[in-house]
Amino acid sequence: MAEITLNFPDGAQKSYEAGIKPIEVASSIAKSLAKKSVSAKLNGHYVGMNDPLTEGGDFQLITTADEESLDILRHSTSHLLAQAMRRLPKFAHAHFGVGPFIENGFYYDTDNGAGNQVSVEDFPEIEAMMKKIVKEDLPILSHEISRAEALETFKDDPYKVELINDLPEDEPISVAVQGEHIELDRGGLVPSTGWIKHFKLVSVAGSYWRGQSDNAVLQRVYGTAFWNAEDLEADLQRRAEAKERDHRNIGRDLDLFFTSQKVGSGLPVWLPNGATIRRQVERYIVDKELANDYLHVYTPVLSNLNLYKTSGHWDHYREDMFPPMDMGDGEFLELRPMNCPSHISVYQHKPRSYRDLPLRIAELGMMHRYEKSGALTGLSRVREMTLNDGHTFVAPDQLEEEFKSILKMTMAVYEDFNITDYRFRLSYRDPENTAKYFDDDEMWEKSQAQLKRAMDDMGLDYFEAPGEAAFYGPKLDIQTKTALGGEETLSTIQLDFLLPERFDLTYVGEDGQDNHRPVMLHRGIVGTMERFTAYLIEMYKGAFPTWLAPLQVQIIPVNNGAHGAYANKIKQELQEAGLRANVETKEAKMGYLIREAQTKKVPYTLVLGDDEQDNQTVTVRRYGQQETEKMSADAFKDLVLKDVANYSRVAE
Amino acid sequence: MAEITLNFPDGAQKSYEAGIKPIEVASSIAKSLAKKSVSAKLNGHYVGMNDPLTEGGDFQLITTADEESLDILRHSTSHLLAQAMRRLPKFAHAHFGVGPFIENGFYYDTDNGAGNQVSVEDFPEIEAMMKKIVKEDLPILSHEISRAEALETFKDDPYKVELINDLPEDEPISVAVQGEHIELDRGGLVPSTGWIKHFKLVSVAGSYWRGQSDNAVLQRVYGTAFWNAEDLEADLQRRAEAKERDHRNIGRDLDLFFTSQKVGSGLPVWLPNGATIRRQVERYIVDKELANDYLHVYTPVLSNLNLYKTSGHWDHYREDMFPPMDMGDGEFLELRPMNCPSHISVYQHKPRSYRDLPLRIAELGMMHRYEKSGALTGLSRVREMTLNDGHTFVAPDQLEEEFKSILKMTMAVYEDFNITDYRFRLSYRDPENTAKYFDDDEMWEKSQAQLKRAMDDMGLDYFEAPGEAAFYGPKLDIQTKTALGGEETLSTIQLDFLLPERFDLTYVGEDGQDNHRPVMLHRGIVGTMERFTAYLIEMYKGAFPTWLAPLQVQIIPVNNGAHGAYANKIKQELQEAGLRANVETKEAKMGYLIREAQTKKVPYTLVLGDDEQDNQTVTVRRYGQQETEKMSADAFKDLVLKDVANYSRVAE
Repeated sequence: MAEITLNFPDGAQKSYEAGIKPIEVASSIAKSLAKKSVSAKLNGHYVGMNDPLTEGGDFQLITTADEESLDILRHSTSHLLAQAMRRLPKFAHAHFGVGPFIENGFYYDTDNGAGNQVSVEDFPEIEAMMKKIVKEDLPILSHEISRAEALETFKDDPYKVELINDLPEDEPISVAVQGEHIELDRGGLVPSTGWIKHFKLVSVAGSYWRGQSDNAVLQRVYGTAFWNAEDLEADLQRRAEAKERDHRNIGRDLDLFFTSQKVGSGLPVWLPNGATIRRQVERYIVDKELANDYLHVYTPVLSNLNLYKTSGHWDHYREDMFPPMDMGDGEFLELRPMNCPSHISVYQHKPRSYRDLPLRIAELGMMHRYEKSGALTGLSRVREMTLNDGHTFVAPDQLEEEFKSILKMTMAVYEDFNITDYRFRLSYRDPENTAKYFDDDEMWEKSQAQLKRAMDDMGLDYFEAPGEAAFYGPKLDIQTKTALGGEETLSTIQLDFLLPERFDLTYVGEDGQDNHRPVMLHRGIVGTMERFTAYLIEMYKGAFPTWLAPLQVQIIPVNNGAHGAYANKIKQELQEAGLRANVETKEAKMGYLIREAQTKKVPYTLVLGDDEQDNQTVTVRRYGQQETEKMSADAFKDLVLKDVANYSRVAE
Repeated sequence: MAEITLNFPDGAQKSYEAGIKPIEVASSIAKSLAKKSVSAKLNGHYVGMNDPLTEGGDFQLITTADEESLDILRHSTSHLLAQAMRRLPKFAHAHFGVGPFIENGFYYDTDNGAGNQVSVEDFPEIEAMMKKIVKEDLPILSHEISRAEALETFKDDPYKVELINDLPEDEPISVAVQGEHIELDRGGLVPSTGWIKHFKLVSVAGSYWRGQSDNAVLQRVYGTAFWNAEDLEADLQRRAEAKERDHRNIGRDLDLFFTSQKVGSGLPVWLPNGATIRRQVERYIVDKELANDYLHVYTPVLSNLNLYKTSGHWDHYREDMFPPMDMGDGEFLELRPMNCPSHISVYQHKPRSYRDLPLRIAELGMMHRYEKSGALTGLSRVREMTLNDGHTFVAPDQLEEEFKSILKMTMAVYEDFNITDYRFRLSYRDPENTAKYFDDDEMWEKSQAQLKRAMDDMGLDYFEAPGEAAFYGPKLDIQTKTALGGEETLSTIQLDFLLPERFDLTYVGEDGQDNHRPVMLHRGIVGTMERFTAYLIEMYKGAFPTWLAPLQVQIIPVNNGAHGAYANKIKQELQEAGLRANVETKEAKMGYLIREAQTKKVPYTLVLGDDEQDNQTVTVRRYGQQETEKMSADAFKDLVLKDVANYSRVAE
């Protein structure tokens, strides 16, 4: 028989008889290696552990210790899912689309036909069948077949037929077989179904076939798999936690907001509870900025398209912008993608002098982004957003001082919101690819150094990220953890040397000449109302601190008839002090009403009966606590007012 | 000679020799009649007092006692203006467009060529020449000419040539002649230039020829004329007053807002001063509504176009709506023309019960209207506006009570803004043209009666206006006086039986059935922020009460070096109390700085020198007063805080 030579990753070379299987190669090295080898790669292509090797080349065994092995496991689990569904009468005639591994798991797109839709209620039965097939320990074998054979094999599966027909003529077609089940597949699978022990189906969602909205809607079944029970358990816990924190779920449970196709994709409607939180945030940040010498303005959400041609947005950012609107008299209006040009129009409204600088323009500025409908998510990815935006115009020698003062204000704001889990990123241009950026080497060197020096001066830790700068200048990003463990930018301070050029901004210097060029700082302290609220919801799990809570005090009279009047008196006193209180009028068991207030995460629940009424007291229960406390009505009011005034820090 | 018979308005008939002039007819009746007869009409067409009558028919003399005579006078004054301009070397080669009378005056469109533009500085010279021609007392005579003669006569006046060429072939062409001056004219002129004694040129503005934006821009010279000096004087005074109150002028002088073609037509930019006023109004009205059990929401400014198809806006209101935007995936988004469909989506978000009613949804809702660019004016006629909008959903038997409570709240708000000059209009459907309205006779009869009964119950005066109702129901309009003496609707409460039908709104009644139909009340308490602010600016002439004033306290240290620190301390104390204060840092004469604060209409000006500093006092001057008062810094702070808390009523 012919010989083949395999080159191992460590540089070793060995010759084998052609037809040897990777599992045999592994065994020849070490029994333990064979036991933990999941799959192999020959010349960069996957080969199953039981598939004969017909040629030599670069050879690599993938073991459970390799990151990649999890992808292989999950990919295999998607096949297991399909096989199990096919074995169940309800899904016997299901058609399957694609079933790849993804980050943290896998999915399979299935078309189950009307009346046979798969739901989470079906998961136990499907998982039971998957476990049965695991017990059968069916070998998983791959081989190539001709196009004609492939079309014949999958003739009842229209999506597979479409996939086959879309393959280039000269592309070899392979299938993977496990028992009675056959998959159109390029490899990267475990040796047998017995390897797949720790898995779980997690959800199902609608999904357009191949992501095209004019295609059929399939059902995408999501699952995950791990090499051991502990990892799976930890992952499921993390998912449960993320789900519990997911702002969309909390938003629904607490009546904060909703989105609907009817109103429009990516256009959330803020219900009264969510609107209350947003209003608190808006008033808080506007007042904070006014106290820091910002000048607040209102500028239109749409402008003459030419403004965005001048700014460069139309050239560089058009795919994220809404279609222009023809006003019929030669004017085209455009929903603004950013507020900078609007604030520049305020700067340009009159001649500016060095005495006016730093000039700080701020606004709760609404913007619109042309996001793909598939990318839209709750409040965190939307088409209409209101940014806590600000632009400072400074003389070049004021840049560092202004940067520091913005950063100080931002950190003070974070403290009030109790945001502590963040880190600073200095985003520079990519030194390997300077062509991507505004062309002015000296500016970049100097301004990056300025940012760094300012951070060092302030004694703050940071990390540097080349390639993360904006086109027009370097920036500081404040990175926070998301509920799902990811990281996102909550605030940013960007230096901009380009827009002042493009709009030819000038100021009169001390020399009396009107030819000095200001620098712009773009900054968002809390970002958009949408994303920030999503962030707060997830951070607080919906249990908002008193100053932000939609309802601050829930008042439950023991008996509506006897104590309703007293309850209303208390409510009115609290309202007149600017607090948000409500009297429960539903007739139900006290325990039920108290639990309901806890479910709604109301910071304070008052129970008022004879004793309280006679003594002008209230019995107070704080959110999440079992104990109650009795105090005078006035003392309670003061307590809540103090709680609000301190952003709930002292009272916590 | 032939005879003609004239029929007089009183029924009398008289015969005259053909060729008799109206002036002779008048004289034959009474010398005094001839003296005050301005023009005549034969069979509905004007005839000059000195033009021979060649046929008989219905005949009427127009005297200075008739309203119409003012139009004739002003029309004649526009000719006088043209004649005078032609006599001045600077305007000798001017081309003229049209020169009609308008409400309150007249204008003439003139093309004076580059370098010879007419400006208000030219008015005295032009008026002097007009007076000279008046003294010449040139007779004004009309006669018909042929088209060929007309084209020859006006061959140097391209606009007149265009007008002649646009006349239908069979239309007779007349001219009016006064001395050397000839006008293309249809009549309605005084007998001689001597009649035009009391006139004034008032302004000049750019204007497209024939109102088409692709035509040349002409200069439109405005003027007015009266029969006596007193009326002219009163009118000029009223104009001066209106100009002084014009929110566009005050807006510019006090840096409240600006509009610019660059940003976009009809899209005002609110500068920090204007934005401060708006923010106060917004927070005031939102807080007021929250205290009145309104649920505030934020809903998107654009929605799926289908929402406006369901509501009927797309069918009935399309010409006022912006062009829809194609989102590329089958969805069309539309900038909303009204907020009602958005608030309906909030109502529909969950099942509603009779216990939820009245359900009051409110929002500072931004809307967009596709106004013609020619109609746009400052803040009062714009393309983007934010309405203090609210919709109450009530059970039919709650309608009257809810109407009253909205009206009470509105009147309380008016009191806080010191708005006293208004009247109530009950707007009904037109009984002569019921086809124009939602078809339900019983509904109309009943709801109009309900409105009337509610007003009577509240003991309020009102007037009834058939034909002013909305398509979908009757309404109450609160009509206020504008600076120019006109009337506009500031607030409105509208009943709506139609949208609940169109959106199939229901609630669960006490009977447990989810088939009860609510009624909607649309209401705006202060209307749009844009129009309301324009109204406030004009009402207060820019001298805002303390609680609304952009800057409340201007602090002037006698000497910056010596008293600057004390001034800043006072400023900080005021700011920490939530007040808006500023320290003057400019070095200039005290008198100048005080005058400047008065010009900026700041409610309080403080002067701080040695004495104040030593005794921790302030010297206070109120806006518009000469006297000053010395008091402790604390007393002053309390004074201003009280002023703000009382909406400046007690302190005034």
